[in-house]
Amino acid sequence: MSRTYTDELRRHVGERVELSGWLHQQRQHSRISFVILRDRGGLAQIVVEEPAVVRTVAPLLPETVLAVEGVVADAPQAPGGVELHDPAITVIAEPREHPPIELRRPQLKEQLPTILDNAPVALRHPRQRAIFEVSAAALAGYRTTLDRLGFTEIQTPKIVGGATESGANVFERVYETGPVFRAEPHDTPRHLAEYVSLDAEIGFIEDHRTVMGFCREAVVGMLEGVAGRAGTALAQLGIHLPMVPDEIPVLHFADALALIEEGTGEAVTGELDLAPSHERWLGEWALRTYGSEFVFVEGYPMDKRPFYTHPEEGRPEFSASFDLLFRGLELVTGGQRLHRHEDYLRALAERGMSAAPLEGYLQAFRYGMPPHGGFAIGLERFVSRLTGAQNIREATLFPRDLKRLSP
Amino acid sequence: MSRTYTDELRRHVGERVELSGWLHQQRQHSRISFVILRDRGGLAQIVVEEPAVVRTVAPLLPETVLAVEGVVADAPQAPGGVELHDPAITVIAEPREHPPIELRRPQLKEQLPTILDNAPVALRHPRQRAIFEVSAAALAGYRTTLDRLGFTEIQTPKIVGGATESGANVFERVYETGPVFRAEPHDTPRHLAEYVSLDAEIGFIEDHRTVMGFCREAVVGMLEGVAGRAGTALAQLGIHLPMVPDEIPVLHFADALALIEEGTGEAVTGELDLAPSHERWLGEWALRTYGSEFVFVEGYPMDKRPFYTHPEEGRPEFSASFDLLFRGLELVTGGQRLHRHEDYLRALAERGMSAAPLEGYLQAFRYGMPPHGGFAIGLERFVSRLTGAQNIREATLFPRDLKRLSP
Repeated sequence: MSRTYTDELRRHVGERVELSGWLHQQRQHSRISFVILRDRGGLAQIVVEEPAVVRTVAPLLPETVLAVEGVVADAPQAPGGVELHDPAITVIAEPREHPPIELRRPQLKEQLPTILDNAPVALRHPRQRAIFEVSAAALAGYRTTLDRLGFTEIQTPKIVGGATESGANVFERVYETGPVFRAEPHDTPRHLAEYVSLDAEIGFIEDHRTVMGFCREAVVGMLEGVAGRAGTALAQLGIHLPMVPDEIPVLHFADALALIEEGTGEAVTGELDLAPSHERWLGEWALRTYGSEFVFVEGYPMDKRPFYTHPEEGRPEFSASFDLLFRGLELVTGGQRLHRHEDYLRALAERGMSAAPLEGYLQAFRYGMPPHGGFAIGLERFVSRLTGAQNIREATLFPRDLKRLSP
Repeated sequence: MSRTYTDELRRHVGERVELSGWLHQQRQHSRISFVILRDRGGLAQIVVEEPAVVRTVAPLLPETVLAVEGVVADAPQAPGGVELHDPAITVIAEPREHPPIELRRPQLKEQLPTILDNAPVALRHPRQRAIFEVSAAALAGYRTTLDRLGFTEIQTPKIVGGATESGANVFERVYETGPVFRAEPHDTPRHLAEYVSLDAEIGFIEDHRTVMGFCREAVVGMLEGVAGRAGTALAQLGIHLPMVPDEIPVLHFADALALIEEGTGEAVTGELDLAPSHERWLGEWALRTYGSEFVFVEGYPMDKRPFYTHPEEGRPEFSASFDLLFRGLELVTGGQRLHRHEDYLRALAERGMSAAPLEGYLQAFRYGMPPHGGFAIGLERFVSRLTGAQNIREATLFPRDLKRLSP
């Protein structure tokens, strides 16, 4: 008999089917047991009345792997509106012991460190899995959108001899989705030692505003991906998807500081970066003023941006770069890059950096490069913002940070 | 004026358009110059007759970045059947010097080390880029196929504390596409220190043959991706796409050895692995016997497979694993994994390995895991086999090996 999934049962009422999955939960009454089986489709209730089968099932530990043959019956009170009657149950694999996580609860009650320590088990919970269904859908939406816009997906090496970023401007439009490793000693609910970055680079741009246009398209594509591919997960998580305005509000960094100073009374003039509290304040301001959960801040001071950043036209202390804040948190960083070889040499000299270890990086600029720029979206930040996670680790299968190297 | 790409010119005959791109080549005659401009669409010929423009263009180095306005005219002898007349040419960015690679040739003449040393420039050549269009299309085809088969894309950490492989069996069907780093000291035309691996894991399998079925689907999907998305690149490279038979021929390892011994006269009985020459011989045998460019070899000796490999039913010296050979080279390795916690402990003990550093890896098996398996496809191997590259480095944007760490 070929396998049926729990979310297909409604189409098989009255038929005998075979399910396979994990023993999610069981409730034993005097002469009857209700077994909840979990598979990749969801949950299904199995009604066990035959005394011999009741006795077989009673001692089974949660997470026992089972195959269950039975007849599908209407049952308005059961999950999915159906249940399995008259079951024959086969044990496929037995666990050694009780799982360290109580998977039967609608939402896990354990603290985050316990959940992370036991991730291979905790991730079996339907609600935990839903978060990663959202992540996969967002990633697929990103790729679909950039493919449509004529980008080519590339793979650049992660083993590098020296500092590097953005890199391969060999096609005119490229993107890459892959791991980024962080050498900085950040230990916050927003930072990971390894995360997934969705990078794009675009040649022949006007300025950083061209890049911001592509960035908006990419974010719209990610949300469309989630809406189109992860509907069940969205419902399970109770997620509200944000609208992206046709024109995301844009604030210059200097104007943002003035607004914050005016709004909060805090003296921030002359600051070189936005503190997390300032990002939150701007997020609330954009929502209040424009009804937008997104806001661009452009023109960050050059002092806080990497050497390859292009300065703002006419105000070289500011950069032709931007951050996109989503619900008060930096989600994307991007901007126009330098494109003239001599500009790179000057920028490096001004920062007291040597050009020699960057020879491979600088090679492209020696032989003619157009104005170009790009951006990087943090996948886990996007998903944690979307799902309302308090900690980015909740949106990471097996997080790595200053203190965590397993599982 | 908005930008037009060279591959769109045919639709604009008689109109004035603006192109942007690189000066690919120029041929100067006494009163006329032919400028070939390269953009992401391809090449276009620009006819320069105005003496002032001829003088402007003459000293420009190859790879100068240009914007060119001109009128599109029919020209059966020009690339694409059209050319640009009456051009106004603006220099966007000037190179510092002559490029180290002669990009104007239909096919690069430089040796591979020179090409790799100058990859940021060499990759501008249309034929080089076509290889990576094929790569992107194969990857997209892989993902589309596994998405359709109900897989979830996941991201696992590359920073790991101990040995690990396959990992995250938390969904029933998962795949991941990402970098793999090789600690082995291989220095051959088939090996890289970093490559892109397309991994899939499947729960609730019958045995390794179930996995081979999914593997075949994935390869078919990659070829469909290439056919559907990289038609221009295929034509440019003159690639013949292989047919995948409905039933790829399958040989047991022991039978493969017997065949090789019979066919070559070489004594191979008792060998534990296939040498590259044996893989080539089997590739030719499958083509000759079945007209297939693919052949599965199953049942490799357990001694040569990792600890998590499931033994063959009834013949525990052989494994329930397989390789897929494509044109005489191993393209995929896969198989059934152990799924019982006690089997893992026994397998580790037999190999004299400690279970302690694998605690995180073994956790899932403590709490009930179904029979499962998976496979890994090497993207660069697939693309180099497909494009007829002699060296896998030709199918890698910026290869990393024992001796190469840049560019």
